[in-house]
Amino acid sequence: MPLNRQWILTRRPEGEIAAGDLELREAPTRALEPGEVLIRNLYLSLDPTNRIWMSDQDGYLPPVGIGEVMRGGTIGVIEESRSDRFKPGDIVNAGLSGWQDYSIGHEAMINPVPQIPGVPLTAFMSVLGATGLTAWFGMMDIGRPQPGETVVVSAAAGAVGSIAGQIAKLKGARVIGIAGGPEKCAWLREIGFDGAIDYKNEDVGAALDRLCPNGIDVNFENVGGDIMNAVIARMNTFSRMSLCGLISTYNADVAAGPADFGRVLMKRILIKGFIIIDYLPRAGEAFAELAPWVASGQLKWKAHVVDGLENAVEAVNRLFTGDHDGKLLVRIAPEP
Amino acid sequence: MPLNRQWILTRRPEGEIAAGDLELREAPTRALEPGEVLIRNLYLSLDPTNRIWMSDQDGYLPPVGIGEVMRGGTIGVIEESRSDRFKPGDIVNAGLSGWQDYSIGHEAMINPVPQIPGVPLTAFMSVLGATGLTAWFGMMDIGRPQPGETVVVSAAAGAVGSIAGQIAKLKGARVIGIAGGPEKCAWLREIGFDGAIDYKNEDVGAALDRLCPNGIDVNFENVGGDIMNAVIARMNTFSRMSLCGLISTYNADVAAGPADFGRVLMKRILIKGFIIIDYLPRAGEAFAELAPWVASGQLKWKAHVVDGLENAVEAVNRLFTGDHDGKLLVRIAPEP
Repeated sequence: MPLNRQWILTRRPEGEIAAGDLELREAPTRALEPGEVLIRNLYLSLDPTNRIWMSDQDGYLPPVGIGEVMRGGTIGVIEESRSDRFKPGDIVNAGLSGWQDYSIGHEAMINPVPQIPGVPLTAFMSVLGATGLTAWFGMMDIGRPQPGETVVVSAAAGAVGSIAGQIAKLKGARVIGIAGGPEKCAWLREIGFDGAIDYKNEDVGAALDRLCPNGIDVNFENVGGDIMNAVIARMNTFSRMSLCGLISTYNADVAAGPADFGRVLMKRILIKGFIIIDYLPRAGEAFAELAPWVASGQLKWKAHVVDGLENAVEAVNRLFTGDHDGKLLVRIAPEP
Repeated sequence: MPLNRQWILTRRPEGEIAAGDLELREAPTRALEPGEVLIRNLYLSLDPTNRIWMSDQDGYLPPVGIGEVMRGGTIGVIEESRSDRFKPGDIVNAGLSGWQDYSIGHEAMINPVPQIPGVPLTAFMSVLGATGLTAWFGMMDIGRPQPGETVVVSAAAGAVGSIAGQIAKLKGARVIGIAGGPEKCAWLREIGFDGAIDYKNEDVGAALDRLCPNGIDVNFENVGGDIMNAVIARMNTFSRMSLCGLISTYNADVAAGPADFGRVLMKRILIKGFIIIDYLPRAGEAFAELAPWVASGQLKWKAHVVDGLENAVEAVNRLFTGDHDGKLLVRIAPEP
């Protein structure tokens, strides 16, 4: 029973996550029950929704309790097994197993990670994990871009946004991304976006006017606030807004809705909030399209790997400052 | 060629519609071209959207031009015909023929009004006209209430709201209406609403908590503002908001969206703006269900008829003060 390091939520953050909001504590792992496996976690996924889980907001999952291990998705390797489905050495998706070195999971709650030649393990924590599924369902089930339509993606250089935009592009739409800084915008153009707007250095409204002369048919919304309002002000009749996130507001008390709701009425806009867990029963649909695109290199993605579980808290704040380059992961242990 | 009285938009109203914003002027009608008919208008429909048409807002139809006849829907009787489809004496839906005694329409743009025993002509300006279609499509195509679900309708004693609520009730839902004043609330209970909230005399949030113990699955939104926010705050996961109107905001510059947009995301709420003209090609679907309900008396409706075209401007403001009892119509001329 190895010693386990665990990040414990000790108080609810106010605004940005501060050093004392979580504490790294040590505890021994317990013995396995029948059907359980001991997983040594390899990669931890850091996602904007983590900030919501730390709050006492009525979200799509209950808040993490004070004194509990922080919730988070991991991929790991089986070290011990009392399951017939898994043996030591198997690489598995451990689900929301938490910010810790080891987790114990029941065989019913964990899934093997498939091997695809040329596709690294980190892909299954990003483009072929919840991130890619979020992008695919938000774009294909709600946004439904048609060939020739104009799609705008906010936080477009982010893990979800960059994939969402490429999916729309692969489906024949014209795609404009909004991101912070010239490097991110250059990368968006490199991976095939038709245009990129640097919200830190450009007037977003004026840039949208220039880059979307026929208005906007699909808004893949990750941000909220002023950027969202600039997009909505240019959304066309019968356009769709896939509401994936409101990251600009997660450190605030309340996220305000569209400033001009009359336009939602007059332009008959569809707005739909979604959370990826709703779509997990349909994950195969997305995976069937995403996996070949990833294997062939048509769909580009990046992981930003921070080494060491002890650096998870410092790393998670990068999601809100934009100071990361690709899907943010923590490497808890080296791949076997 | 009879003399025609026409309400002309002379300037754009600021806030409430004021006396000098429209002027009643006289002009002779012109001679008919082939295919045209001269219609003596009998009833004019007054609707909240009229206020939008008077503004310079980018709506679903262009603003009425300054110096033009005010736009409005009418039913009338054919006085002269150069069409093979219509003969003098026929009662027709004249479309958006305007606030005037006479209008000239092309046969392609007008439709006969069917005769249903026991159903008066005013029904075709309300429950079997655009009002009823608005209620039916907003409820059935967007709200989609399921048996046992909870539906909330704002401006529920209004022409659209009262029908929308009854449709949901006929479909097996539990229906709560929000209206202004004890008389309106009593009427809602009388026509079968499971509960009614008097927003002028009650705390809407507290009343919703009491009347919707299982939360809200469908919001048929007519009002916007604080009432909308009180409803959204109680909307369930996977609930639907049919955005039909924002009447509390039509005299304002901009209608603000939901105060708590994070809830739209977390609860995966669907919001869809709609305008009845989009559904006109499918009108038959709604009519097939509404007409038997009206003929059998299962669906209750009221018309509030103001006599005299000269009183149209005074009457239209009643839409915003709530000082009317049923679908607001102007009787331009007595039925033949």
